[in-house]
Amino acid sequence: MKMPPPFRSLTRLALSVAFLSSITFVIAQIQAPGPRKLSARTIPVPNTVSPEMQKLIAAPLTPTWNVIPKTSAEWKAQVDAGAAVSMQALPALRQKLDVKVEPLMIAGVKAHMVTPRNIPPQNRNRLLVHVHGGCYVSFPGESGTTEAIFMAGFGHFKVISVDYRMPPDHPYPAALDDAMAVWKAATKMADPKNMAIFGSSAGGALTLSMVLRAKQEHLPLPAAIAPGTPMADLTNAGDSFQTNAMLDNILVAPDASCDKRAALYAKGHDLKDPLLSPVYGDMHGFPPAILTTGTRDLLLSSTVRVHRKLRQAGVEASLQVYEGQSHGHYSRDVAAPESKEAFEEIAAFFDRHLGK
Amino acid sequence: MKMPPPFRSLTRLALSVAFLSSITFVIAQIQAPGPRKLSARTIPVPNTVSPEMQKLIAAPLTPTWNVIPKTSAEWKAQVDAGAAVSMQALPALRQKLDVKVEPLMIAGVKAHMVTPRNIPPQNRNRLLVHVHGGCYVSFPGESGTTEAIFMAGFGHFKVISVDYRMPPDHPYPAALDDAMAVWKAATKMADPKNMAIFGSSAGGALTLSMVLRAKQEHLPLPAAIAPGTPMADLTNAGDSFQTNAMLDNILVAPDASCDKRAALYAKGHDLKDPLLSPVYGDMHGFPPAILTTGTRDLLLSSTVRVHRKLRQAGVEASLQVYEGQSHGHYSRDVAAPESKEAFEEIAAFFDRHLGK
Repeated sequence: MKMPPPFRSLTRLALSVAFLSSITFVIAQIQAPGPRKLSARTIPVPNTVSPEMQKLIAAPLTPTWNVIPKTSAEWKAQVDAGAAVSMQALPALRQKLDVKVEPLMIAGVKAHMVTPRNIPPQNRNRLLVHVHGGCYVSFPGESGTTEAIFMAGFGHFKVISVDYRMPPDHPYPAALDDAMAVWKAATKMADPKNMAIFGSSAGGALTLSMVLRAKQEHLPLPAAIAPGTPMADLTNAGDSFQTNAMLDNILVAPDASCDKRAALYAKGHDLKDPLLSPVYGDMHGFPPAILTTGTRDLLLSSTVRVHRKLRQAGVEASLQVYEGQSHGHYSRDVAAPESKEAFEEIAAFFDRHLGK
Repeated sequence: MKMPPPFRSLTRLALSVAFLSSITFVIAQIQAPGPRKLSARTIPVPNTVSPEMQKLIAAPLTPTWNVIPKTSAEWKAQVDAGAAVSMQALPALRQKLDVKVEPLMIAGVKAHMVTPRNIPPQNRNRLLVHVHGGCYVSFPGESGTTEAIFMAGFGHFKVISVDYRMPPDHPYPAALDDAMAVWKAATKMADPKNMAIFGSSAGGALTLSMVLRAKQEHLPLPAAIAPGTPMADLTNAGDSFQTNAMLDNILVAPDASCDKRAALYAKGHDLKDPLLSPVYGDMHGFPPAILTTGTRDLLLSSTVRVHRKLRQAGVEASLQVYEGQSHGHYSRDVAAPESKEAFEEIAAFFDRHLGK
């Protein structure tokens, strides 16, 4: 029904008033400013990732996520059990990616040389240093080489994986000291301009701490770094510690196993020390960095906060966030196309920034 | 108490067995593979952002997030009410950023020329085209210029902001047709090599769709694009539609007001058409792109999925994810340091990729 213009305007005005009243009513119903209250809910497995990744996302929470040993012996038993599970997967992984792994000592520190069978010409004089994850306590010995094998296999680089000392026997700064000793020695094996450091989780934090230490000690810096989902803030500041709690099926929640392990490492040392929580470090002069995380990662905030800190310091820094992934999902299934994508992305970044 | 070695081994074995049994017990307790069940919880406002951003994060849910008008007249009243709120803020914003806004017609399409008072020499021959957000229905006329003012002010670029036709009167492809008409005309006003297209939300999707259309029609492409938190998947595929529901205080949840507005735009057209859901488009040959989102953004997944699609197509694509931010929080408070950071990051990206 057509109305003459004055009536149309009046109708519209009446509607506006009705609408604004409904807003006022709705505002009154809606929560006040402040914390966000969320109801219980069920989050489906997304269909926007590969079937392999769907399987990882659908997996139950890590069984030990909140199992806290009480003694050193119990910690070691837990660590050994975890290492045994990782070790079981390694022969097939090495075969699939055509990579060999050999133990070696570098500057008195245990390590593994991880070598792909095919090394393209541009990578022959390049060398990567890997610092493994495991919340500073897990994945000793060969069990810490998984991610190094992914990188060597998908990226076709030679990798030295540092088997750094760990708590309960060896707290901070043993891991960092070992990693630095290997870094120093490795810079005699290759030109630092042809080198990068990478690692995820605790290894991501160590990657950042190594650069902070190398700056302090006026050592050569790597030409690039790849901190994956770094444990960059041991104080648990960061929104995703809350928003992704119980959604991330690897770390699962703050103040659980991973934090207890990190506390064994810190052993009373100030958690805000940039060598323990590198997000508080001065990142000016850092080499180009590529960071990797997932939308469900408990450390999504830690990763994006480091990315912003790097950018604020004028560092070339590239952020990769993968759909639906929890902490470190990108190195859990060699058959997931997202794993290949993540490591090839890092390899391409290294290729752009490393000399030959 | 020291034990002789054989007893120590036995003790350790016993502990391992006890530990593994406890794992089995814990596994039995933990949810089965599949969807993740989350309990009700309260998420605090993070302290890892500026006070200004904390205020935006603490704000109640957008009052109209799930208020769905039933008629065209009611829609128009809602849109007018929203536009009035935006308009109120514009004079102070323009003054603060020292930007002037003038209406103009380009190729028969309404637009605004947004000009910063100070244009540095390298930007004098550069021109940006802005497509505003608002779920394809909101922010008509000058009320759509907010983000263009942020960009002109923080980036010191001249910007043409397209005041494209919108539903309920003008469904798809009116908005895209208008944006393309302006793009074609604008490429006669400046060299496309010196030009970029940007916009957030619906404007982020339109930015991507414009490049898809320009490819189809063999038109010149911009030298760079900045799709912010693009509505790149109107089918609501994407994990963060679930994980960030009710956490994002702007869009709030799927199947609410924004989706109803997008449906007015699509008007029965296949939502998987890449010109409506550009994540399904072929992104080969796209210009360098910088994408912006936040960890609480309902469109976090849409943004990171577009980023991956661009990377998979070999496009230089830079992802910026801001701590704690909901949908488009980066252009809501000119005084928040994160707003300046986001637009200066985009401006620096444009500066690297645009000719002079």
